[in-house]
Amino acid sequence: VGRAGATEPKRIRLGRVEAFSDGVFAIAITLLVLEIAVPQDAGDRLLGALGDLWPAYLGYLVSVATIGAVWYAHSVITEYLDHATATLVRLNLLLLMVVAFLPFPTRLFALYLGEERPERVATTFYGASLLLAALLISLLWQYAVRAGLVRPDADPADIAMLTRRLTPGLAGYLAMIALGLVLPVLAAFGYLAIAVYLLVPVGLQRHRG
Amino acid sequence: VGRAGATEPKRIRLGRVEAFSDGVFAIAITLLVLEIAVPQDAGDRLLGALGDLWPAYLGYLVSVATIGAVWYAHSVITEYLDHATATLVRLNLLLLMVVAFLPFPTRLFALYLGEERPERVATTFYGASLLLAALLISLLWQYAVRAGLVRPDADPADIAMLTRRLTPGLAGYLAMIALGLVLPVLAAFGYLAIAVYLLVPVGLQRHRG
Amino acid sequence: VGRAGATEPKRIRLGRVEAFSDGVFAIAITLLVLEIAVPQDAGDRLLGALGDLWPAYLGYLVSVATIGAVWYAHSVITEYLDHATATLVRLNLLLLMVVAFLPFPTRLFALYLGEERPERVATTFYGASLLLAALLISLLWQYAVRAGLVRPDADPADIAMLTRRLTPGLAGYLAMIALGLVLPVLAAFGYLAIAVYLLVPVGLQRHRG
Amino acid sequence: VGRAGATEPKRIRLGRVEAFSDGVFAIAITLLVLEIAVPQDAGDRLLGALGDLWPAYLGYLVSVATIGAVWYAHSVITEYLDHATATLVRLNLLLLMVVAFLPFPTRLFALYLGEERPERVATTFYGASLLLAALLISLLWQYAVRAGLVRPDADPADIAMLTRRLTPGLAGYLAMIALGLVLPVLAAFGYLAIAVYLLVPVGLQRHRG
Repeated sequence: VGRAGATEPKRIRLGRVEAFSDGVFAIAITLLVLEIAVPQDAGDRLLGALGDLWPAYLGYLVSVATIGAVWYAHSVITEYLDHATATLVRLNLLLLMVVAFLPFPTRLFALYLGEERPERVATTFYGASLLLAALLISLLWQYAVRAGLVRPDADPADIAMLTRRLTPGLAGYLAMIALGLVLPVLAAFGYLAIAVYLLVPVGLQRHRG
Repeated sequence: VGRAGATEPKRIRLGRVEAFSDGVFAIAITLLVLEIAVPQDAGDRLLGALGDLWPAYLGYLVSVATIGAVWYAHSVITEYLDHATATLVRLNLLLLMVVAFLPFPTRLFALYLGEERPERVATTFYGASLLLAALLISLLWQYAVRAGLVRPDADPADIAMLTRRLTPGLAGYLAMIALGLVLPVLAAFGYLAIAVYLLVPVGLQRHRG
Repeated sequence: VGRAGATEPKRIRLGRVEAFSDGVFAIAITLLVLEIAVPQDAGDRLLGALGDLWPAYLGYLVSVATIGAVWYAHSVITEYLDHATATLVRLNLLLLMVVAFLPFPTRLFALYLGEERPERVATTFYGASLLLAALLISLLWQYAVRAGLVRPDADPADIAMLTRRLTPGLAGYLAMIALGLVLPVLAAFGYLAIAVYLLVPVGLQRHRG
Repeated sequence: VGRAGATEPKRIRLGRVEAFSDGVFAIAITLLVLEIAVPQDAGDRLLGALGDLWPAYLGYLVSVATIGAVWYAHSVITEYLDHATATLVRLNLLLLMVVAFLPFPTRLFALYLGEERPERVATTFYGASLLLAALLISLLWQYAVRAGLVRPDADPADIAMLTRRLTPGLAGYLAMIALGLVLPVLAAFGYLAIAVYLLVPVGLQRHRG
């Protein structure tokens, strides 16, 4: 077994991969609030100052919804898997690296929205980060299907549906990034719409526990 | 099964929903301390400067108690559930979005308490955020009861009691928000009282594990 | 059962209490690093500037060791428990509130060490916070023993030993707080020594899983 | 049993050690993004300002990869263990203390890269921190093997391979720290290469669950 073990693909338990990933998703969502700067010395203008923060609230909403949607897709995917491999762990680490990075472009977007030229740079940078997260969760699933990591008792219709679900999001992000060069605010609502779409019932029949 | 799967409500395991939620609750509580600014260059006035931070300590206490109470209600609720659905996951994500946002109004409250007009704005904003969290945990439970997600062996008296527990908190928040327009500090103690009330034994008989 | 349920003490599963607590302990330890300010514009003096940060490193070491010791005691305690009650959940929330607060006095200590009068205030405030954490973990255990939450198969010698372990730490903190009024740096090393002492094998024979 | 229990090494369950460690690893990875300063008032120069941040992106990449590699080695190690001891818990706490500290040297590296003399100090400090993390995970494994904590059914070839895997990383770090005194940027790519190497299939056959 020892010698065979060096050439055969190794099986890795999903438990700690899930626990570590849940931690990163939960913290990334929670750190977003630190990017909203509390208005200092606003005095009697506080109500107005809180209203002026709407780009920060919009960024918070978009990023929470996106991370939530990626977390949800991640939990549906691991539900279908029988075990992990070292390659899946590495792909997952890449995904978590992008998810953990999202508070930075979110802050950038909130800070520059309203300034004509930089807002296009910030919105494109933000959209590209969201696209990268969506791309990596899609790649994770495609790798898992091809590497035969899916549970043998999984319904092929479910697998095909999950693949269909994860793909159009990518086209949507590309369209919104292009739109963002002209109308950044509208693009942000587009990013939100994609996240909400991804959250719509992918809730397939579970087979575990 | 594949075709039926498109129309039937899907069952989702509670395990990762709980793990992800526990992560967000734990981080939201722990991030609150970052909102307390350490006094700089206080010199011999340090003791006084630490005393002057009482609004920050009060905000910390109220927010920890509230997040703790919402976490506790959340853990009691999932204890009664048999499984989750995609709608429950989305409602839960909305709840977590509000909980993760709480460090922002907490800081706002601590920063503006003592300044006449802005303190009313800050206290109302804070109270509205707490109310929203309490409203969403109550909605989560009501949805779960109506959607038939409660375990078949749960005691109807327990279910009725949990519903009664979660509702009056909402009225309490509305009363305290109104009071906060006149007496902000008193309203903060009111928010604390509601949280402590919500923490009082909802500890119903558990049926799982 | 429904009516009886209103008077009998209710049993609460330990699983989520442990998960939530582990989250708070882990985050409190990790947030400590944010309290160490990176030297700005140090230029060729960078090596010296990094050396000047020794009070921040010392505070980091003391707080990580203390939170680690409290986490360890917490995990030993829950190991001996059969179930939780609503009162235990509330005591636990108080403990977590103090643990999550520790980054604040740690920063205060690191910032004021070296300034004659304020360093005594900062060191006392820090020591009092550490004492409070040790006191609450001790209270949690005493409550659990008195309320009969300990597993029936636990060895009485183990229970007595755990009680003996958790108590002298309190006297140690009081002595170090008094010492800190005269020699703050020495008191910090004393706090470290207590934490290391608390980490010494309380690893009693476990009965679960 | 009670008296014997005072001399025999005690067995500790791995569950909470894993949960606590996963929390610290996940948070350390996610906090790294807070060390990347969002450019303020960049105006039309925003694109250039984002490009100028490349040392921060490089540090982010290196630290995420390193923490990911240490987490991965940690999850492989605990997979082979039957139980923990109090000494393992203390060694693990030392490891977590170093991992949680990494955001500080990462920021230092990103801030000083490009300034001739301080960049050598910052890169050496960074490399020494990474080396310390790699050293402690290696010590953890060596202790576990010597203390007989490895599951009796583990394949000796697997154990030897894991030992071989964890050792050369240390020599690599020493070489890169030396290189960093002359060519800091190249050393950073070297740190990245070591982390990627450590992530390459250590995915040995698992025996649990």
